[in-house]
Amino acid sequence: MDLTAFSVRTDLAVEAHNLASPSGQAIPGVQTSVQDLGGIRVSKIDITSQEGSRALGKLPGHYITLEVPALRNKDSKLQNRVATVFASEFEAFLAKLNIHPMAKVLLIGLGNWNVTPDALGPMVVENVTVTRHYFELMPGNVRQGYRPVSAVAPGVLGITGIETSEIVHGIVEKSRPDLVIAIDALASRSLERVNTTIQIADTGIHPGSGIGNKRKGLTIDTLGVPVIAIGVPTVVYASTIVNSAFDLMHAQFQRETAHTGQILGMLANMQEQERLQLVREVLGPLGHDLLVTPKEVDEFIEDIANIIASGLNAGLHEAIDASNVSAYTH
Amino acid sequence: MDLTAFSVRTDLAVEAHNLASPSGQAIPGVQTSVQDLGGIRVSKIDITSQEGSRALGKLPGHYITLEVPALRNKDSKLQNRVATVFASEFEAFLAKLNIHPMAKVLLIGLGNWNVTPDALGPMVVENVTVTRHYFELMPGNVRQGYRPVSAVAPGVLGITGIETSEIVHGIVEKSRPDLVIAIDALASRSLERVNTTIQIADTGIHPGSGIGNKRKGLTIDTLGVPVIAIGVPTVVYASTIVNSAFDLMHAQFQRETAHTGQILGMLANMQEQERLQLVREVLGPLGHDLLVTPKEVDEFIEDIANIIASGLNAGLHEAIDASNVSAYTH
Amino acid sequence: MDLTAFSVRTDLAVEAHNLASPSGQAIPGVQTSVQDLGGIRVSKIDITSQEGSRALGKLPGHYITLEVPALRNKDSKLQNRVATVFASEFEAFLAKLNIHPMAKVLLIGLGNWNVTPDALGPMVVENVTVTRHYFELMPGNVRQGYRPVSAVAPGVLGITGIETSEIVHGIVEKSRPDLVIAIDALASRSLERVNTTIQIADTGIHPGSGIGNKRKGLTIDTLGVPVIAIGVPTVVYASTIVNSAFDLMHAQFQRETAHTGQILGMLANMQEQERLQLVREVLGPLGHDLLVTPKEVDEFIEDIANIIASGLNAGLHEAIDASNVSAYTH
Amino acid sequence: MDLTAFSVRTDLAVEAHNLASPSGQAIPGVQTSVQDLGGIRVSKIDITSQEGSRALGKLPGHYITLEVPALRNKDSKLQNRVATVFASEFEAFLAKLNIHPMAKVLLIGLGNWNVTPDALGPMVVENVTVTRHYFELMPGNVRQGYRPVSAVAPGVLGITGIETSEIVHGIVEKSRPDLVIAIDALASRSLERVNTTIQIADTGIHPGSGIGNKRKGLTIDTLGVPVIAIGVPTVVYASTIVNSAFDLMHAQFQRETAHTGQILGMLANMQEQERLQLVREVLGPLGHDLLVTPKEVDEFIEDIANIIASGLNAGLHEAIDASNVSAYTH
Repeated sequence: MDLTAFSVRTDLAVEAHNLASPSGQAIPGVQTSVQDLGGIRVSKIDITSQEGSRALGKLPGHYITLEVPALRNKDSKLQNRVATVFASEFEAFLAKLNIHPMAKVLLIGLGNWNVTPDALGPMVVENVTVTRHYFELMPGNVRQGYRPVSAVAPGVLGITGIETSEIVHGIVEKSRPDLVIAIDALASRSLERVNTTIQIADTGIHPGSGIGNKRKGLTIDTLGVPVIAIGVPTVVYASTIVNSAFDLMHAQFQRETAHTGQILGMLANMQEQERLQLVREVLGPLGHDLLVTPKEVDEFIEDIANIIASGLNAGLHEAIDASNVSAYTH
Repeated sequence: MDLTAFSVRTDLAVEAHNLASPSGQAIPGVQTSVQDLGGIRVSKIDITSQEGSRALGKLPGHYITLEVPALRNKDSKLQNRVATVFASEFEAFLAKLNIHPMAKVLLIGLGNWNVTPDALGPMVVENVTVTRHYFELMPGNVRQGYRPVSAVAPGVLGITGIETSEIVHGIVEKSRPDLVIAIDALASRSLERVNTTIQIADTGIHPGSGIGNKRKGLTIDTLGVPVIAIGVPTVVYASTIVNSAFDLMHAQFQRETAHTGQILGMLANMQEQERLQLVREVLGPLGHDLLVTPKEVDEFIEDIANIIASGLNAGLHEAIDASNVSAYTH
Repeated sequence: MDLTAFSVRTDLAVEAHNLASPSGQAIPGVQTSVQDLGGIRVSKIDITSQEGSRALGKLPGHYITLEVPALRNKDSKLQNRVATVFASEFEAFLAKLNIHPMAKVLLIGLGNWNVTPDALGPMVVENVTVTRHYFELMPGNVRQGYRPVSAVAPGVLGITGIETSEIVHGIVEKSRPDLVIAIDALASRSLERVNTTIQIADTGIHPGSGIGNKRKGLTIDTLGVPVIAIGVPTVVYASTIVNSAFDLMHAQFQRETAHTGQILGMLANMQEQERLQLVREVLGPLGHDLLVTPKEVDEFIEDIANIIASGLNAGLHEAIDASNVSAYTH
Repeated sequence: MDLTAFSVRTDLAVEAHNLASPSGQAIPGVQTSVQDLGGIRVSKIDITSQEGSRALGKLPGHYITLEVPALRNKDSKLQNRVATVFASEFEAFLAKLNIHPMAKVLLIGLGNWNVTPDALGPMVVENVTVTRHYFELMPGNVRQGYRPVSAVAPGVLGITGIETSEIVHGIVEKSRPDLVIAIDALASRSLERVNTTIQIADTGIHPGSGIGNKRKGLTIDTLGVPVIAIGVPTVVYASTIVNSAFDLMHAQFQRETAHTGQILGMLANMQEQERLQLVREVLGPLGHDLLVTPKEVDEFIEDIANIIASGLNAGLHEAIDASNVSAYTH
C-alpha cells in the first residue's frame, strides 16, 4: 500500500495503538490505561521506548485522548462536562511534565480560518483568556491564580506567504514563553472520530501532521521550549472513504467466493497501482483536496473549539475552575 | 436500484439527457442545442412533450445550462465573462417566456445560510440590486431601465420552524410579484460539476430537489405566477462517491474475470440490499448527511454567487449591462 | 424643540416615566413598581388609562424593564442571572396576558443584520430553539413541556425591497401563530442604557420606533394576534450627543452668569432653528445616520442577544428552566 | 488645551498642513502640490527640514493623500478609478524611495479585526495577492512581473497578549523582507474624511497613532528596513464631536455677545479642566471608547479595503495593472 496516499499513518495515538494491537495484547514500551467517565472515554498512552515508538509509529511521549461519541448531539451539559474533564486532565498533564504554575504559555492556533474544518486552532485562540499583557503592563496588579498567557493564530503558508513555523519561531523569540501549546485540526481515518475526539500530547507538531501541509515542525528542538499539541480530527479525506469502500467490497467478495481459491488469488493480486488508479477515477482531478464533512460542520467546530478554550482557561489558571469556566470564554 | 437513496435522479437536465441519450441519439419530444463560447458551454434543452419528459425524467419546459470547467481556477476575467453570458442568456430566456420588461420580480434565495454549500441562494439575494421599494415610495422618480425587484432568503424548516413554501407563499401574496426567480444549491452526481455548472429552467422548484428536504414545491401552480429556477451543483453526497467506487470496482472485476462466467453471475447478483448495507458500513450512522466538498468551498460559493448576482442584475434591468454590471453587485 | 429630530420621544417607558415624573410623584392612570434583584433593577409600569398614556406619551399597556448597568463588564455569571430573571418575568408576563402554555408563538427578529447595532433581533432568532416543525411533522412525538415556536428575521426594506410588516403579515397568515413576539434594537437617549436595558411590552411595534424607519406597525390590530415587543437600546444617535453637549454648556453658562439677567435672557432666546443649525454644522451632511457606539459593540450585542434567546427559551417552554437554559441556546 | 485628550494632533499630514497654514501661505521646509483627477484630489506634502517638521507637528518625510468625498456613494466605477490612481501613485512612490522592483515586501495589517472600524488593516491583507511562498518553493517557476509579497495581520495587544511591534519584529527577523508596508485605520478629527481619505507616507508607524494604543512604533530604526504607512481615517471619537459642539457654541455666543466684553472674557476663561469635565458629563464613563461611525460602516470599510488591496496588487507587481487589477483581489 502506498504509504503516502492511503497509509495507516494516523495523527491519533489511540488509533495507532488499535492498529498495532487489534486484540488488545500488551506492546513492549507502551503503557496504556482507560477510564470511562459517563460517556467520556479517557485513554492514556505512554510510549516509553524506541521499541514502543516503532510498534505504534508514533514518537515517544505522553498521549491523552478524550473520546465522546455523543458530542455530536449538541447537548451543552455534556459539552460542559467535557470541558471540565479536559481541564482537569490538562492540569494533571502539566503537573506530570513539571510545568510551573506560573510558567508563561503561548497558545498557537494552527490552521486556515477560511476553511471551516481547518479553522479549529484559530477559533480556540480567539476564545481563550489572554493575560500576558497585564503581567507586562502592571505586574503588581494581576490577581493571584493567573499565569501569563498569550495567543496567536499565525495563518497558513497560502495566506501569509511565510512558513508558519517561521512566524511562530519569530514570536517565540520575541515573547519568550516557557511553554508552547499548539492547537490543530487533524484528518481522521474514521468518520466516527470527526469532532468527537480530542488528543493531548507532549510531542509537539511534526511535518505532515494535521490538515494542510506542515513542512516544518514545532517541537522543543526547533523552538527551545516544550510544545504540547492538542488535536481534533475534523475531517476525513474523500480518498480515505473510497479506500474503505474498496476494502469492504474486497472483504465481501472474499466471503462470497471463499470456496474458489482462484478468485481469492486474483483479489490478492490487485495491484496498489491499480487501486490508486481506481481512487483517482472516482475522485477525479480534485481528489487531493476533497473533504468529507457532516452538513453541520460549522456548528460542530464551534462547539468543540469552545470546549477546548474553556478547558484551557480552567486548566491553565488556578483561579478559573469548573464552576466559573464559561465566564472566561467568549 | 433503490431510487430514493442512490437514484439516477438528477436536478440537471444535461445530466438527465446524457443518461437518456449516452450516444447522442435524438429523443422524441426533446430539442437540444449546444454552443461553445470560449470555455463556456451553453446547452439548451427544450422538453416539449410528455414522451420527452418521461424519457429524461424531467418536467416539460426550457432548460439552459452553462458549463464552465475552468471556473474553479479563480480567474476573475473568466468570472466576468460568465456573468455577461449568463445575463444575456437570462434576458433572452425572459423574452422567450414573454416576461414584460417592467414585470415585477421576486428573487427567492433558497437554502441554509449556516451550511456553506447550501448558502448559495441566500448569498445571491444578499448581493443583488433591490429596487422595488423605490417604485413603491417614489414611483415617479425611478430612472428608466429598471424594473421592480425584491429579494428574500426565507431560510429552511430547521431554522424557522415553518415550511419554506409557506413563507414564500405569504410573501408572494402580500408583495404580488409577476415573476418569481428561485436560486438554489443542488447536489450533483459528478464532482466535475461542483461549482462549475449553472442551470436556468422555467419549471419551478419541486419537492425533493436541491440540498436539504424541500417538502413542497414553488411552481406556477402553487404560487400563481411563473417560477424560474436557477440552480448550481455545490456538493456531492458521500454516498454517491461510495457508489461510484463500487461501480468502478465492479467494472474492474468484470474486465478481469470476463472469461469466468461464474463470477460474472455472482457480481450481477449482488443485491441492492447488500449494496445499501455496504454503503452504510462505509459511511456509518452519519451517512445521510455527509457531504464531499473541495477544501476551498467557501471561496467557490462566494465567486459563483457573485456571478449569478451580477448576471441577474444585468439580465433584469435594461439600464445595467456588461460594462457596468459589477458596479451594482456588492 | 423640533419633536422629530431631537424630541423627548423615547421607546422606553421608564425613560418616559422619569421625564413625566422627575421627582417621582404619582401620575394618574400609571402604576409602577420597582424591585432590585442584586444589580438587576426590574421596573413595572402599567398604563391603565388614556390620561396616563398622554402623560407618558406611551400607549396603554404593560411594560417591564430590566436595567443592569454591570452588563457591560462581560461577567457571564451576571449574564446567566439576567437570563434567568428575564425568563421568569417573561413567563409571568405571558400568564398575566392569559397566553396559553401551548399557544403557538412566532418570534420576529426585526432589524438589519448588516448593521451591527441593528442586528440584535436577527441574532436572537438565530439563537432560539425552534420547535414548530416537530409539532407539524410528528405531532404525537414531541416531549411534554414544549410549545410550538417558529422564528423569522424578515430583514429591512432596503434589503428586501418589501415592507417588513408585509412580510410578517404574509408569514402570520400562512403559519397562524397565537402570539407574535418581536425583538428590536432601539435608539436610546442615554449612553448608560446602551446594551444594559431590556424592555418587554404588550403594545406591539409602532411606526417610527426602533433603529431605522419602520413605516408600518406590528400590532394586534394589524396582525390579528397579540404582539409582545422586546427592545434593547443599542445605539445613541450622534445628534443626541451633540444636543446633550449644548444643554450642558447652556446650563454651565447659566450657573456662571446667574447674576447677569441679560445673558440669561439671551440664552433662553437661542432659537430652535439656530440650534438645529449648530447640530448640522457639527455633524455635517452625514448627521442623520451617525451612530455613537462603544468600541466593543459587536461583543455587547452578541452577549445581550444570547441573554434574550436563553431567557425566551426558558420563558416559553416549561421543560426548559434556569438549570438547563444555556443547553438550548446556540 | 489638553494635548492628550483633545489635541490638534492628527495622523494626516494634509490636516496638519491646513492647521499650520490656514490661509495657504508657504511654510519653510514644506513642499506641497495638489492635483485634481476628476473627483480624486491628490495632495503631496514633502517635509524636508526640522523647521517644517515642527511647523506641522509631523515627521520629515513624504506624504501622499487621496481625498475622494464621493467614495461614500458606493459607486464602483469610482472605486475602480481610485484603485487605479492609488496604484500609479504608489508605484511612483516606491520609485522615488528607490525600492527595487524585486524588493521583497511584507504587508502588515494593523488593527483589531473584532472592531469593525479598526479592521481595515486585517481586511486589506486578507485581500492582497501573496506570492512570497512561490519564490521560496519553486524560485525558477514564478512568472516575470511579480515580486515576493508576504502579508500578516498581527492582531492587537488585547487579543494576543503580545505587543504588536514584537510580533512584527519577530516575523521581520525570520522572513527578512526589504520593505515593510503597514496598513492602519486612523481616528479623524473630521467626519468628512471618514472612509474618504487615504494617506501614504514613508515615515513608518509611530506610538499613539491609529485607533487603539500603539505603544511602540514600526520604523526603519526599529525594524531595520524602510516602513511605508498607509492610513485611512475610519472613525471619529465621540469626544471630538462633543468638543466641536462646544467650539461652535462658543463661537456662536462670541458672535452674539460681541458687544459685551464681559462675556467674552468669561468665555475665554473657561478652563480646560472645566471643559474636560463637561465632555465627561456628556459622554459618561464610556467616553474614552465611544466611536462615531456612519450606519453603513461595515460596507464602507470593506469597499476601501478592496480599493487599497487592488491598488497594492497593481502597484507592487508590474504584471498586474489597471486592466486586470480586480482579477487578483478576492
